[in-house]
Amino acid sequence: MIDSPTLLLDRDRALRNLHRMQDRAQAAGVGFRPHFKTHQSRAVGEWYREAGIDRITVSSIAMAEYFADAGWDDILVAFPLNPLALPRYQALGSRVRLATLVDNPAALAVIADGPEPTMDLYVDIDAGYGRTGVPADQADRVGALIDTIDAMSGLTFRGFYCHPGDTYHHADADERGAIHTRATDGLQALKQRFAAHTPRVLMGDTPGCSTADGFPGVDEITPGNFIFYDLVQASLGACDEDDIAIAMACPVVGHYPDRGEIVIHGGGVHFAKDVLEVDGRHVFGKLAERDGDGWRISRQALYLDSISQEHGIIRVPAERLNEFRVGDVVIVLPVHSCMTADAMGGYVDLNGVAIDHF
Amino acid sequence: MIDSPTLLLDRDRALRNLHRMQDRAQAAGVGFRPHFKTHQSRAVGEWYREAGIDRITVSSIAMAEYFADAGWDDILVAFPLNPLALPRYQALGSRVRLATLVDNPAALAVIADGPEPTMDLYVDIDAGYGRTGVPADQADRVGALIDTIDAMSGLTFRGFYCHPGDTYHHADADERGAIHTRATDGLQALKQRFAAHTPRVLMGDTPGCSTADGFPGVDEITPGNFIFYDLVQASLGACDEDDIAIAMACPVVGHYPDRGEIVIHGGGVHFAKDVLEVDGRHVFGKLAERDGDGWRISRQALYLDSISQEHGIIRVPAERLNEFRVGDVVIVLPVHSCMTADAMGGYVDLNGVAIDHF
Repeated sequence: MIDSPTLLLDRDRALRNLHRMQDRAQAAGVGFRPHFKTHQSRAVGEWYREAGIDRITVSSIAMAEYFADAGWDDILVAFPLNPLALPRYQALGSRVRLATLVDNPAALAVIADGPEPTMDLYVDIDAGYGRTGVPADQADRVGALIDTIDAMSGLTFRGFYCHPGDTYHHADADERGAIHTRATDGLQALKQRFAAHTPRVLMGDTPGCSTADGFPGVDEITPGNFIFYDLVQASLGACDEDDIAIAMACPVVGHYPDRGEIVIHGGGVHFAKDVLEVDGRHVFGKLAERDGDGWRISRQALYLDSISQEHGIIRVPAERLNEFRVGDVVIVLPVHSCMTADAMGGYVDLNGVAIDHF
Repeated sequence: MIDSPTLLLDRDRALRNLHRMQDRAQAAGVGFRPHFKTHQSRAVGEWYREAGIDRITVSSIAMAEYFADAGWDDILVAFPLNPLALPRYQALGSRVRLATLVDNPAALAVIADGPEPTMDLYVDIDAGYGRTGVPADQADRVGALIDTIDAMSGLTFRGFYCHPGDTYHHADADERGAIHTRATDGLQALKQRFAAHTPRVLMGDTPGCSTADGFPGVDEITPGNFIFYDLVQASLGACDEDDIAIAMACPVVGHYPDRGEIVIHGGGVHFAKDVLEVDGRHVFGKLAERDGDGWRISRQALYLDSISQEHGIIRVPAERLNEFRVGDVVIVLPVHSCMTADAMGGYVDLNGVAIDHF
């Protein structure tokens, strides 16, 4: 019985997404190291394990600790090496195969002062996204980093990692394809240049991994969002709306025919505040129809138009206002599933069973 | 020792904010029922209790349960009555003095079917914000709600509540003053019209309560954000930046002189994603300077310009890039403290002591 904002997780949809991505990786002949930052759930992790996955990606050392405690023993923290957390890398590196990213010799210099963690390092490569990483065309800097790592005792250079997250900012499939190709080209050039170090190449953003024709030169893909997908991914053509595997169930608490709006219990602390532009409107979610204990896609879409801390406002055409009453529950697909899951901190599956979140 | 994103809480600044608002309420001759949705902390609640506060406001029934467990026994849930949560109102109403809002007879009709909770009701009044509430000029609808409540057994009509949240959308102090006056005028008219019911009038948004000259006709003010304030409040003139009582401490993990940027561990899952426009830039936070275990306001401001799930990007002028190194910790003031506190789910005070968050 739903009496407050609840994040529903449809296991069937999530498993379908998982198997589809796993099939894509197998068909392309690349390994699959899924990113767990989207679901952040031990229970969902078990679904991966049952599918044969034995290595994972996370986005923080804290998340790595969480999944190490759940029995994962090959973990990449796809985030820059943080010298302040050295004791945590040391502790974790002593009990699992741990890896992280580096793009700056300063981080290595700090580490060189103390007992080194036992850890693999991937040099973070920026293929144009402009967040972290050495620009792909600065091979000399890459080489200097590899040499520095090689001179250290506990750390081992393992290869290159790239997150071409700029795919998220291009609705055009050809532009995203060009970003994907630019990334694989840059990584392949580095792989050849530093072939003596037998580097492995890891990359993966969900839009690219969901639609790219191939991954030339790539050894492992590391997408994460695909397990749930969301409205952003659907807007990019990375999935259908019917693939979205989580949805918020929210009580209707207000009904305002004068303004043509209803108000739900469901706001920024539940959805987070990622925004999607749809036909010039900025929306925070899209309504689906309840269907048994789950949902189906609505033909006539309504949107979550505005949110504050606990409230959400949905504009409803006059002729549809009588479909909603105070005391109903509506289903809302999230704009950005990673952030909504993190804001909610837990799920309920369609049988009403709670599912953990870090 | 900070090794990951940490939400610092400066007790001295928070207490100063608390006492200032309490003094304003006393000077205006109104009661003070602070909103706890901003801090959501039992420990911070104790600071209020030590200041003599004995009644509080919260934004959900779950938050009311949390604070009832902490010994608060006069709690207003400033959120529309949610018929789906009836058993929770029943349970909580049997052990504390509980109140909530109503603006719709449909919610009451659902409740009338079952055993009624013992609870006070305030009719939610919309003075122009347009989120929830009966429009202030629709006295007939207000009267019908009062009559319906009076005919019920467990529920008691107590008065009117208004959240004039539109003050947040007006940087101009005169416009905000007009919104405040419109709200108090509307509430006073209703108070007179329904004087036979001896209604209490509750209202309070932090911008209005921080700056208004008076609260004519108001019995209790219910602001919440003021305990911490934030960059939005400072931009509205509701506080000085130096009043902001929480700040994120974030490790520097990337340094990019070519682009004139540094990257911190601190992203959407830490700050949430509220945005403030500053001189045409959209920013997610503003840097302060470390000062002992706390911080002071920087004369030359830098901003958190971009965030993704775990990363934050700060643009730094070339001449200042050498102030920052990988392995440093920077202090970032939040755009919206309620959302940042909720995203972080806990604080650390300036002595390193953990402080709870619901």
